[in-house]
Amino acid sequence: MNSYPALAPIQAMITEVEARMCAQGEDCHPDLRAALEHLLSSGGKRIRPTLVLLVGRMLGAPHDKLITLGAAVEMLHTATLVHDDLIDGSLLRRGIPTLNARWSPAATVLTGDFIFARAAKLAAETENVTLMQWFAETLAVIVNGELTQMFTSRGLISRENYYKRIFSKTASLFEMCARAAAKVSPADDETVESMRRFGHKIGMAFQIVDDILDFTGDQATVGKPLGSDLLQGLVTLPALYYIETHPNDPDVHLLRDGGWGNRERMERLIESIRGSDSIQRSMQEARDYIEDALEILASCPPSPERDSLEQLSRYIIDRQV
Amino acid sequence: MNSYPALAPIQAMITEVEARMCAQGEDCHPDLRAALEHLLSSGGKRIRPTLVLLVGRMLGAPHDKLITLGAAVEMLHTATLVHDDLIDGSLLRRGIPTLNARWSPAATVLTGDFIFARAAKLAAETENVTLMQWFAETLAVIVNGELTQMFTSRGLISRENYYKRIFSKTASLFEMCARAAAKVSPADDETVESMRRFGHKIGMAFQIVDDILDFTGDQATVGKPLGSDLLQGLVTLPALYYIETHPNDPDVHLLRDGGWGNRERMERLIESIRGSDSIQRSMQEARDYIEDALEILASCPPSPERDSLEQLSRYIIDRQV
Repeated sequence: MNSYPALAPIQAMITEVEARMCAQGEDCHPDLRAALEHLLSSGGKRIRPTLVLLVGRMLGAPHDKLITLGAAVEMLHTATLVHDDLIDGSLLRRGIPTLNARWSPAATVLTGDFIFARAAKLAAETENVTLMQWFAETLAVIVNGELTQMFTSRGLISRENYYKRIFSKTASLFEMCARAAAKVSPADDETVESMRRFGHKIGMAFQIVDDILDFTGDQATVGKPLGSDLLQGLVTLPALYYIETHPNDPDVHLLRDGGWGNRERMERLIESIRGSDSIQRSMQEARDYIEDALEILASCPPSPERDSLEQLSRYIIDRQV
Repeated sequence: MNSYPALAPIQAMITEVEARMCAQGEDCHPDLRAALEHLLSSGGKRIRPTLVLLVGRMLGAPHDKLITLGAAVEMLHTATLVHDDLIDGSLLRRGIPTLNARWSPAATVLTGDFIFARAAKLAAETENVTLMQWFAETLAVIVNGELTQMFTSRGLISRENYYKRIFSKTASLFEMCARAAAKVSPADDETVESMRRFGHKIGMAFQIVDDILDFTGDQATVGKPLGSDLLQGLVTLPALYYIETHPNDPDVHLLRDGGWGNRERMERLIESIRGSDSIQRSMQEARDYIEDALEILASCPPSPERDSLEQLSRYIIDRQV
């Protein structure tokens, strides 16, 4: 697992979360258990459980409920990844073979379903009805977002559409993590709401940075070609800024006309975007979200967990991959 | 929708359940909404919501909770069918094109996920934590059962294995319907438990009869060839009884050796099973389950709903398709 400063104070709790996740494979068919272990051991930054644990500890939530909730959100996230990789036909994630690289589509669909079921069971074990409703609603938002993206013609989209898409894809779950952790704490409604906003801000920033790294990241580490989103016709914030400021670039015209399949021209467009100020403008937008998030934190009483949440927020814009 | 006597007293409530299900498509992408409407209008006997409504009314559950729960269980069932049809590559269900006959696998996977999410949201709206836990657990049992069936080599299985399989596939959800309806009623734990057993019994009978109808049903109505399970290497109760009583039939030997792909020999075996007493022995087993179910009902105070549950139980063994 990648490590980052915010993680250090709760490393032991993250290990408990991982054990809780692995335990979901008990009493299952051995092949399913092995698949679960493979998926859960494939690493990832555990950024969603980290958010749950830090917010919950800051607000005095019971230890056990946080472990359960942390496992529930990471399982939900894992289930969506399993189905996403199947849909995209991805064979690698984080440099490790995906489930569908080794299994039939049928087994992959069902394994994703099983992980959904276990995530829902863990969420139910928090014994908090509101949290269950948020959990189910978040899953619906994520899936509806993916379907909308699938049904929407690729190529040109508006920035408004982009923000909706990254909310569905990423910020909705970050928001849920933070508000759910607050909900199982002895916190008032106002605090729950400000934690929801905190989760939303860092979630939006997280996805914008991910979209920037698709243009600027170290290819070997990302494991995808530079600008892979655009090569698939997926227009993200750096491309949107470039399109707005370079309406007459012939490659932009081509993109508008559905020409993202023209690899040579799109590679040239990717280089143009990389060399433009669109990357910096996008980064500034992510920084603005993080500034808002830090402002929300500033209104919380000082605590080691608040410090870690600040570190987590800064890590989101500073990370390289 | 197919009609049957037990349904009459609650027909209006079933209409409410269907409206509640359709409402889950509001605020979605129009294509997803259209897909949901297509799926939900494709009929089916609504036997699971019927079970929920009758048990709940018999025990005095609040009207609104029953409508919500009825919609939740039918959505859960629908979601599993969407993924099943995708996995099997089925193009028709109840004579109507399946989603995957018209949509890409990707859209079909996500639509199933969306319906799971909405089912979970409806379950959460009952505001009953225990019920949520049962709901999530049932989904896990169904999916684990399907995966186990997928991983287990086809052909010869034991009767014990068969009972486990039909519990996962069918009886687990019937059980959940009946106990959940009791749980949202002002009923004591003993009643909840006896309703669970009632649901279990009629669920086991339901699947056994389904498996018999695969051998004896009207082909035009079933829309599948006679013995389609066996042609796919899926050994059900009538085949198991035949195998037990005809260990030396060469076609049985072939089946043992993985020969279910030999269409001619398997068609002969299907005819042998149809002509044997295995059908009647299987039917007797289904009747025994229904007798147990009726006995459980007999210990409930008389009511119109109890009468309807008796009719429902008898319908399960008397139905033709």
